[in-house]
Amino acid sequence: MDSLKKRIMQEGTNLGGGILKVDSFINHQVDPVLMDDCGAEFARLFAGVNPTRVLTAEISGIAPALMTARHMQLPVVYARKNKPITMPDQVYLTVAPSHTKGSMVELIVSPEYLGHGERVLIIDDFLASGSTIMGLARLAQAAGAELVGVGALIEKSFEGGREALRHLNVPIHSLVCISSMENGQITFCA
Amino acid sequence: MDSLKKRIMQEGTNLGGGILKVDSFINHQVDPVLMDDCGAEFARLFAGVNPTRVLTAEISGIAPALMTARHMQLPVVYARKNKPITMPDQVYLTVAPSHTKGSMVELIVSPEYLGHGERVLIIDDFLASGSTIMGLARLAQAAGAELVGVGALIEKSFEGGREALRHLNVPIHSLVCISSMENGQITFCA
Repeated sequence: MDSLKKRIMQEGTNLGGGILKVDSFINHQVDPVLMDDCGAEFARLFAGVNPTRVLTAEISGIAPALMTARHMQLPVVYARKNKPITMPDQVYLTVAPSHTKGSMVELIVSPEYLGHGERVLIIDDFLASGSTIMGLARLAQAAGAELVGVGALIEKSFEGGREALRHLNVPIHSLVCISSMENGQITFCA
Repeated sequence: MDSLKKRIMQEGTNLGGGILKVDSFINHQVDPVLMDDCGAEFARLFAGVNPTRVLTAEISGIAPALMTARHMQLPVVYARKNKPITMPDQVYLTVAPSHTKGSMVELIVSPEYLGHGERVLIIDDFLASGSTIMGLARLAQAAGAELVGVGALIEKSFEGGREALRHLNVPIHSLVCISSMENGQITFCA
């Protein structure tokens, strides 16, 4: 998606170690108009798989998932990383390695909002190693829901997430793909 | 706002201890259409104060703040509760007691996205004791920005937040006001 790619070129920073800083429009400050455009694009890309629910992980998945859900007129559920006191004791819980924290994080969804027969579209900010998205897919599976698609704003193809998710056998779309961040550069996929 | 009040009446649960569970449309699962309507209403209510930026706190403030920012065509910044590795070492940081966690949480904003001369509109999900919103107001003040308004989806007037924020001398709007949660009831303000 050209508008997102342009923003990455203008404002994205390669911090080294495969870390792309996009805090000025996605991860700390958010551009709601750009995010809404991304949501519209995901809605277009996934219109054919007929999801009934959008699933994401807090925190930075919320903005793109919410905008996608708005365009598809679907509820969005964000997996929590800490169980709030409002959640029942019986939950779906998995653990996934955090790319930016270097430790494991829990992903928790209440059975109240993810159930058998749902068609789940996962939307997140990054597709890197695919571990967070795999965690969300496990939650959907645990709930007896069917995964129907995976979307990410930015794919870092050099981290192999797409291959790791291939066995899920669902369409995977990223809006912008980065093939390399070697030597301080940001190289987009051809 | 009638649509939000109706949802609280239909799906809100009084868990006791002043805790209102609205996990089916705000805090875990989000209704993006309702949230967008709330954003439009905040945009209408605060059009006169000419904000240049919306400020909120992760996690559950993100959805209403993002939708408000969308309608006002402004950037939104969400204060982080943990400093991500993408953030510089010099930050604005304050601590606020967490209503639902029973402990103190940090609220952190990068100076990159909150600066002198900004006109800041704070949007959050709840106005209860006002402590999170006071924390956000302190961050805005530390940054040399001017606070111009405070909006919350749901005000629990019996927790006194509006009085606690009065000295800020800015317009405070909530879309739904709850005056009591005694005896398992949810009583709306007259």
